Amino acid sequence: MAEDERPVPGQRYGRLGQKRPRSAFFWEAVDPKWHELFQAYVERGMYRREVLDQKTRELCAVAALTVLNQQGALGRHMLSALDYGASQDEVIEVVLQMSVYGGFPATQAALNTFRATLAEVGEPAQRKG
Amino acid sequence: MAEDERPVPGQRYGRLGQKRPRSAFFWEAVDPKWHELFQAYVERGMYRREVLDQKTRELCAVAALTVLNQQGALGRHMLSALDYGASQDEVIEVVLQMSVYGGFPATQAALNTFRATLAEVGEPAQRKG
Amino acid sequence: MAEDERPVPGQRYGRLGQKRPRSAFFWEAVDPKWHELFQAYVERGMYRREVLDQKTRELCAVAALTVLNQQGALGRHMLSALDYGASQDEVIEVVLQMSVYGGFPATQAALNTFRATLAEVGEPAQRKG
Amino acid sequence: MAEDERPVPGQRYGRLGQKRPRSAFFWEAVDPKWHELFQAYVERGMYRREVLDQKTRELCAVAALTVLNQQGALGRHMLSALDYGASQDEVIEVVLQMSVYGGFPATQAALNTFRATLAEVGEPAQRKG
Amino acid sequence: MAEDERPVPGQRYGRLGQKRPRSAFFWEAVDPKWHELFQAYVERGMYRREVLDQKTRELCAVAALTVLNQQGALGRHMLSALDYGASQDEVIEVVLQMSVYGGFPATQAALNTFRATLAEVGEPAQRKG
Amino acid sequence: MAEDERPVPGQRYGRLGQKRPRSAFFWEAVDPKWHELFQAYVERGMYRREVLDQKTRELCAVAALTVLNQQGALGRHMLSALDYGASQDEVIEVVLQMSVYGGFPATQAALNTFRATLAEVGEPAQRKG
Repeated sequence: MAEDERPVPGQRYGRLGQKRPRSAFFWEAVDPKWHELFQAYVERGMYRREVLDQKTRELCAVAALTVLNQQGALGRHMLSALDYGASQDEVIEVVLQMSVYGGFPATQAALNTFRATLAEVGEPAQRKG
Repeated sequence: MAEDERPVPGQRYGRLGQKRPRSAFFWEAVDPKWHELFQAYVERGMYRREVLDQKTRELCAVAALTVLNQQGALGRHMLSALDYGASQDEVIEVVLQMSVYGGFPATQAALNTFRATLAEVGEPAQRKG
Repeated sequence: MAEDERPVPGQRYGRLGQKRPRSAFFWEAVDPKWHELFQAYVERGMYRREVLDQKTRELCAVAALTVLNQQGALGRHMLSALDYGASQDEVIEVVLQMSVYGGFPATQAALNTFRATLAEVGEPAQRKG
Repeated sequence: MAEDERPVPGQRYGRLGQKRPRSAFFWEAVDPKWHELFQAYVERGMYRREVLDQKTRELCAVAALTVLNQQGALGRHMLSALDYGASQDEVIEVVLQMSVYGGFPATQAALNTFRATLAEVGEPAQRKG
Repeated sequence: MAEDERPVPGQRYGRLGQKRPRSAFFWEAVDPKWHELFQAYVERGMYRREVLDQKTRELCAVAALTVLNQQGALGRHMLSALDYGASQDEVIEVVLQMSVYGGFPATQAALNTFRATLAEVGEPAQRKG
Repeated sequence: MAEDERPVPGQRYGRLGQKRPRSAFFWEAVDPKWHELFQAYVERGMYRREVLDQKTRELCAVAALTVLNQQGALGRHMLSALDYGASQDEVIEVVLQMSVYGGFPATQAALNTFRATLAEVGEPAQRKG
């Protein structure tokens, strides 16, 4: 990913997520030195390696968090996937595909999280049914 | 994905996987009627919906199977990702990213699986170190 | 299971579950074509194979969902187990047995789900204590 | 379950399992006092409560261990299910059903364990394919 | 642990937990005979073996429950760790370390549980940030 | 932990582990830049924060890896716990305690890993039975 595709600092989850507190702020309060370690590994490390584009990274995050049943982080990464250009259909498709590897209850819980997260940030759900 | 991008029947995992027995053959032997249900849902259903390209689907599968610690299915989907055009670096990058969501032991076990799977099908590992 | 033991379409979870929205309705809204794939695999496929009676199937679902910590699907299958003739004691017994394979916290979370689900559908809990 | 349905001490997993070392023997060597605690909770406690018959208990164990990806304990409980009167088809059916709750890789790994366990005790697999 | 270090019966989680219902009371109501089995294994068995001191036991419980995503039991054991002399910093440190083995979302969910549990019992959080 | 308690670089898992290849060597070969990120977070970051002593950290690692069913990393951290002064009894006690939170199959698989790991490095098991 070229530098200019990357959201400027402080605007990650910009389009949607700016309406929502970033989780890392709480971590900063818990332990600032650890927060620095976390940011060096994740934010400035893993997410800037450029082997994969950010949209693919976020779809893979949605995949993993769906089967791990980690709803809090899942909602944030669903927003981030939208921020990096994924459509709602693409996010849902990853969630539906996860039924194959992690079972239908994981898919259903993730769909509920997507619906609740979109509602929380005031983004209309684009349903087909 | 356009029809002509899709491997012809019997050649899935073609480039690498043809040297390796397809898991579904065993399932067919266990219960042919159930195997038909499985194929209708997964092979002819989920994997032909075309909302996501097949390479992205396989990278998402690698993501989920890494954090689920399901090494058998993981090895097959790593080959499938290569078949659909992912580079070894891209497969490894998904595995490294999974340390963020599922921990370092999951990443390490998946790297071992990738190395063993490449060796099994006679594909040289493209290391950087 | 003989045909006449099976609830008529639309009445699954009839005795208790009719007071509760079926999860599948939401899936239908999300993506009708995928909902059809799901129903073909699960509702018309897996749950009609008749190798196991439906009560045993539902107790096995309660077992799996307890150790998977999937509370939403667990509550629905607990109701379904009651629908197919399991007693409250039998549902609880499966949950208690799961402490052996999945640990006591999984058992306790599932007991809380059973209590909340019974309350939601207005079914009195038959306690012994 | 009536008393006379229960295998006599030392013959649990009698028909098949007697050809196989009981896992508990190792636990006894590790720490005899803890082994006594374990037996009081599991063997003389949980497995003798008689709310569920032993065949149903073992099928529920197979369900849980399949989705937990615990292959060692799974193989032993598959044998125990056969000991208590389950057919090979019923054991397989529980494993196939688990694809709904825990995903297809869990089902496939469990089928491999069933095949390997039957081979280990010299019991022919009754395949349909 | 010497006998006099052990909380008297009914005062477990004394300093903080006495403001909070003990989970076991509910289990007693569900099935008194099973509750007795549970207490013999866990309360009078596992937690009185004295190979490890109680503070280390509770920190190990916090470790396991963080990566298992079992928030209910996690909150209770966090209080118990404080009861047995762990500082808030030590509890948080175990949770931060768990990011290595179980991923950052597990750590974050556990930090949220710690904050909510402290608030519930009226204990001020000792933040550094 | 004071500086002088910490093993010198290259001697981590010194007493036992030096007979065993360090996992990180493979990671270095896979991607040296990522290996540097990993070391900054885990080796030079998380494991040098000194809020907990190293023995407690390693026992917490054993706890987490037991319930996560990650046998490869578990074996290495069991050795590391011994390196930092834990007795074999203390390592086993953590594993036995994990039956409470993660179930008996996780405990049993971890005991098998401990036995195999001790054998691999030529350390006699100190059994009580």
